[in-house]
Amino acid sequence: MQPSNLRFGVVGVGRIGKIHIENLVNRIPGAEVVAVCDVAAAELAAVAARFGIARTFADYRELLDLAEIDAVAICSSTDRHYQMIVDAAARGKQIFCEKPIDLSLEKVQAANEEVARRGVRMMVGFNRRFDPNFLKVRETIAAGLVGQPQILRITSRDPAPPPEPYIRASGGIFMDMAIHDFDMARYLMGSEVTEVYTRAAVLVDQVFAKAGDWDTACTTLTFENGAFAVIDNSRKAVYGYDQRVEMFGSEGMVTVANNTPDSHILCDRAGIHTALPLHFFLERYAESYRLEMRAFIDAVVNQKPVPCGGEDGFKSVVIALAAGISARENRPVKLSEIHQGAATACRA
Amino acid sequence: MQPSNLRFGVVGVGRIGKIHIENLVNRIPGAEVVAVCDVAAAELAAVAARFGIARTFADYRELLDLAEIDAVAICSSTDRHYQMIVDAAARGKQIFCEKPIDLSLEKVQAANEEVARRGVRMMVGFNRRFDPNFLKVRETIAAGLVGQPQILRITSRDPAPPPEPYIRASGGIFMDMAIHDFDMARYLMGSEVTEVYTRAAVLVDQVFAKAGDWDTACTTLTFENGAFAVIDNSRKAVYGYDQRVEMFGSEGMVTVANNTPDSHILCDRAGIHTALPLHFFLERYAESYRLEMRAFIDAVVNQKPVPCGGEDGFKSVVIALAAGISARENRPVKLSEIHQGAATACRA
Amino acid sequence: MQPSNLRFGVVGVGRIGKIHIENLVNRIPGAEVVAVCDVAAAELAAVAARFGIARTFADYRELLDLAEIDAVAICSSTDRHYQMIVDAAARGKQIFCEKPIDLSLEKVQAANEEVARRGVRMMVGFNRRFDPNFLKVRETIAAGLVGQPQILRITSRDPAPPPEPYIRASGGIFMDMAIHDFDMARYLMGSEVTEVYTRAAVLVDQVFAKAGDWDTACTTLTFENGAFAVIDNSRKAVYGYDQRVEMFGSEGMVTVANNTPDSHILCDRAGIHTALPLHFFLERYAESYRLEMRAFIDAVVNQKPVPCGGEDGFKSVVIALAAGISARENRPVKLSEIHQGAATACRA
Amino acid sequence: MQPSNLRFGVVGVGRIGKIHIENLVNRIPGAEVVAVCDVAAAELAAVAARFGIARTFADYRELLDLAEIDAVAICSSTDRHYQMIVDAAARGKQIFCEKPIDLSLEKVQAANEEVARRGVRMMVGFNRRFDPNFLKVRETIAAGLVGQPQILRITSRDPAPPPEPYIRASGGIFMDMAIHDFDMARYLMGSEVTEVYTRAAVLVDQVFAKAGDWDTACTTLTFENGAFAVIDNSRKAVYGYDQRVEMFGSEGMVTVANNTPDSHILCDRAGIHTALPLHFFLERYAESYRLEMRAFIDAVVNQKPVPCGGEDGFKSVVIALAAGISARENRPVKLSEIHQGAATACRA
Repeated sequence: MQPSNLRFGVVGVGRIGKIHIENLVNRIPGAEVVAVCDVAAAELAAVAARFGIARTFADYRELLDLAEIDAVAICSSTDRHYQMIVDAAARGKQIFCEKPIDLSLEKVQAANEEVARRGVRMMVGFNRRFDPNFLKVRETIAAGLVGQPQILRITSRDPAPPPEPYIRASGGIFMDMAIHDFDMARYLMGSEVTEVYTRAAVLVDQVFAKAGDWDTACTTLTFENGAFAVIDNSRKAVYGYDQRVEMFGSEGMVTVANNTPDSHILCDRAGIHTALPLHFFLERYAESYRLEMRAFIDAVVNQKPVPCGGEDGFKSVVIALAAGISARENRPVKLSEIHQGAATACRA
Repeated sequence: MQPSNLRFGVVGVGRIGKIHIENLVNRIPGAEVVAVCDVAAAELAAVAARFGIARTFADYRELLDLAEIDAVAICSSTDRHYQMIVDAAARGKQIFCEKPIDLSLEKVQAANEEVARRGVRMMVGFNRRFDPNFLKVRETIAAGLVGQPQILRITSRDPAPPPEPYIRASGGIFMDMAIHDFDMARYLMGSEVTEVYTRAAVLVDQVFAKAGDWDTACTTLTFENGAFAVIDNSRKAVYGYDQRVEMFGSEGMVTVANNTPDSHILCDRAGIHTALPLHFFLERYAESYRLEMRAFIDAVVNQKPVPCGGEDGFKSVVIALAAGISARENRPVKLSEIHQGAATACRA
Repeated sequence: MQPSNLRFGVVGVGRIGKIHIENLVNRIPGAEVVAVCDVAAAELAAVAARFGIARTFADYRELLDLAEIDAVAICSSTDRHYQMIVDAAARGKQIFCEKPIDLSLEKVQAANEEVARRGVRMMVGFNRRFDPNFLKVRETIAAGLVGQPQILRITSRDPAPPPEPYIRASGGIFMDMAIHDFDMARYLMGSEVTEVYTRAAVLVDQVFAKAGDWDTACTTLTFENGAFAVIDNSRKAVYGYDQRVEMFGSEGMVTVANNTPDSHILCDRAGIHTALPLHFFLERYAESYRLEMRAFIDAVVNQKPVPCGGEDGFKSVVIALAAGISARENRPVKLSEIHQGAATACRA
Repeated sequence: MQPSNLRFGVVGVGRIGKIHIENLVNRIPGAEVVAVCDVAAAELAAVAARFGIARTFADYRELLDLAEIDAVAICSSTDRHYQMIVDAAARGKQIFCEKPIDLSLEKVQAANEEVARRGVRMMVGFNRRFDPNFLKVRETIAAGLVGQPQILRITSRDPAPPPEPYIRASGGIFMDMAIHDFDMARYLMGSEVTEVYTRAAVLVDQVFAKAGDWDTACTTLTFENGAFAVIDNSRKAVYGYDQRVEMFGSEGMVTVANNTPDSHILCDRAGIHTALPLHFFLERYAESYRLEMRAFIDAVVNQKPVPCGGEDGFKSVVIALAAGISARENRPVKLSEIHQGAATACRA
């Protein structure tokens, strides 16, 4: 190991925490993990052993108190993000935080302000921005190859609904799932959303209705540049994780196909058959998790702006809130409504 | 020629009229064209000569008066459809009429009533229903292979805007262009639309703004069965005529690709390159025009219901009207609003 | 009908004859069919009635004697081609002849000489040259987009074996089936074959062995320009008619996919499924039959060389004969062996 | 690190050595690299530092003498494989050896015998067997989904020729490049090759002619089961590394497409454009290198047969030798000729 490694503490060793730990340990030069934290002691010990990590903590504040930690990756449940950010910023740690920052716009704003005040960097884990397919779409648009953007289509469908407890704690389809697509829309459009209209329904499983949530949604976004995005979401695509974007513009169109485990084509009496998409986000976005962490390290080490920061985290939450209101009230919702509400709430 | 041929008169020998004439003369057994009518005398003579058609008329009523005509194909401009339908029905002719029946809902209703009263059949030319790709999508859905429909996506983009006079007379993007997609949505969904929300803009050419029209639109339809459709339209796709549908349901998804003139794949230093879509509707929908006319003849000869009748023509106009209101007022519009308006107008 | 139409007599109203008749009657401007001939009287009458053809004959010589016939399309069985060509040429008729001209190289040569002596045109029905996919490949190569040709791959597999009597009379897999691919190879390579090596086997059905034939073959052709072609043939592809070519050269590669009845893509739990290829040659090559006949008419009317003449017919038979010898003797066979044999036989 | 790790020494830290080292260090649980060896001191030091490897050697025998080494990965130049295998086997080390074992059949045989005599395992690095695409093809065939194999097609083209010194030392196109395809053919066919016919040429660069080598080859293999394989090779495909296989059988066909860095599709005025294949074997076969090493470790640790052993290494060399003779003498060569030659040579 070289002395210039960026030294991480990772808080939360669940599904997503383990991905970041594995990448930091094995697949990203210039980084190391010196401490991990979780309240689940057995899992914590197993992870530490597997990846040869020396220090383990049940209390994240003890991890943050370590002088040898440069950066923290916050991979705990959403409701704990805010306090962890504040505490990490107070100790001058560089922050990587999983999305969303918080379900409450006020807390997102407060977290961002604290990060700014403390002069640390915070990157929000919109990993899909780093997916090689979507990166290529973004580059293609940025290179002007589709001209002026006019219509963006995003299809984002999960293979199967999460368990009921997850649904109840998730913040709902817009805050938990579509928020990725809202961020993707801003990222690809290179313009800000001004208005949201969403039609949502429970077509997959009544468990969503019981949780006051929806499982199916079609959203239209209007952007400052006059363009539109249409996003369709479903919690259950039986053929697997369906993740596509398509940008149409004045000079052309660029789209991507789903990723598959292999490219085989079988021709038999019944038809021509190819592989289903990679199962779910762990498989599909494996490379994006690695590339986003590499980008975070690059930003910190080379003192560059993070490619996806607190402002992005804030804006995606605003859109998600607007989508929820639109779905409930069946009317287009201007984002300025949400901003004002947030401002009011902050003042109150 | 066999005595049992269905004998057609064709009114209008423009672009679409010529397609139907060629199909009736050369490509559809059991039909013949005995008379054609147009006010453009030179073009009329040329068409008659080319296809060996004996009788020509400048006045469609003279054509309709011919006892030897069993059926009339109305291919004139939209503003003349209504009177031609009424006159043809009065003479007991079977009617094939290009879409839309009329821009006014009242006239559509009146034409339908007249047709019903006279006991003739009328088929409306929603040719895309007969496109082999969309037929296959419909069959796949009807066979239950995608389960319960949940989300329908339609992309419908023209290669280039029509000339300004056409735009001004067209009835606008919804009545002229998207109406095909509205019919397709009903056809594939097998359920009726209850509500429309449309976001429209002028992003292609200010000529549309001057005509009080739009060139770009994203529409969300809500159906009685709880499902949604999202439709995106543009008057200008530089890569050509883009005509795709995708139905997502509880058991799967079915979609289609654009048609191309050939399937070649060129690999060179710069990339992998394939053919652009067939240029425009004449090429893309050539087969659908033939198949729809065959279906009309089958319905008439075998006394079956037409597969696409006045009711379908009516409903697509209702949706188009609702889309226009929605776009202007930026709000979801229930179709019941339009029906009531139509009923009111009819009473007045 | 216009006076300048090229007037055809068609000899043979079987499967392929009917295709040409329908195209000439309905789909090719500038042509008409004035007489048809076949020994099968009932079928002949049915075809004449269906297409409104006035004159019918059991003896092709009577058809050829008609002064009003400009051209003859020879669609009878191969063993009758030679005499019909000679008789047609003697009467100054322009000749379109289905492939192969004859199974005997001597007769092919003699027919060609007679055609040349009489100063008429003869086109041989290598229809695949006119398939839009293969035309595009040819154009791409001719435009230099793949550079200097180096390796040509052809896959040509039938959906199912023909009936046993057909097999016995067919001349074998090389003369009946692969001959199309040999012609395609010359056509795409733009260079002459110098040597053939073929490995053949009976893997599909022992009926081929009984007929002294094979059902599976892999052929390597060597060309004057130094390039190679590899051709694989099978009499039975359960997934349907498989017709692909791929040209690899110094600057790139061009290939084509099979044609399908539609472009639907079904995604379900089991996989992603698309349509099988069009069933067989009648469907796949429908357009090529029309385009080849149009090219013949164009050559005759505008006094241009036919795009595929007796020389091409001769050369494909030479390759087919060489392939048969190679398969039997398991050794590369130079085409010069066959030419010398033919010359010797002619002298004898 | 756990005590049960398999401890590797790696000999040769060139391109391929570094791949195995990185995989063993970072991406394969249950393995570690305790020593590396190379005559290039600077490179050796850099690799050791980068991967934190304690022991380095210039002489591979010193590495082999380490008691703590369980297995050796031989990644040196081909001419040194034989002696290293013999020395490693003598010390009871498990052996992973890059292909080919040796250019001389006698030495391959001798190495295999030594390995057998010493009772160690030796796996030969035909990494493509572990490529996810080809694995899937193999599984599909093994599952009977294409029925009885009849025709195998392999296309294997490099993006650009290697440097001249590499060409001269490589053993030629068959021993260096096509040997992978010969192994793949055996692997997919599940039957042994009996005969080879190859047509080869210099079409890319005269440097190959100067080295007594070819750059372009088309090979037909005949198998014991009666089936055939056709393989086309080129040293230069300007569009990139082209690696495809297709197995055709009595019940269907299975094939694979090339891998690309992303799945983007750009549609503009000029056409529809997609990404070129991954550049070369390091990118395309990255996963296969990892999976093959995992399989080696699994075989050693769990005392299973290696999936690709000395016998496979021997047979691929036999085919490569036969292909060279066939290309030079332009005749089919039975493998029994080579075996007998080898036997004779061994006796001599």
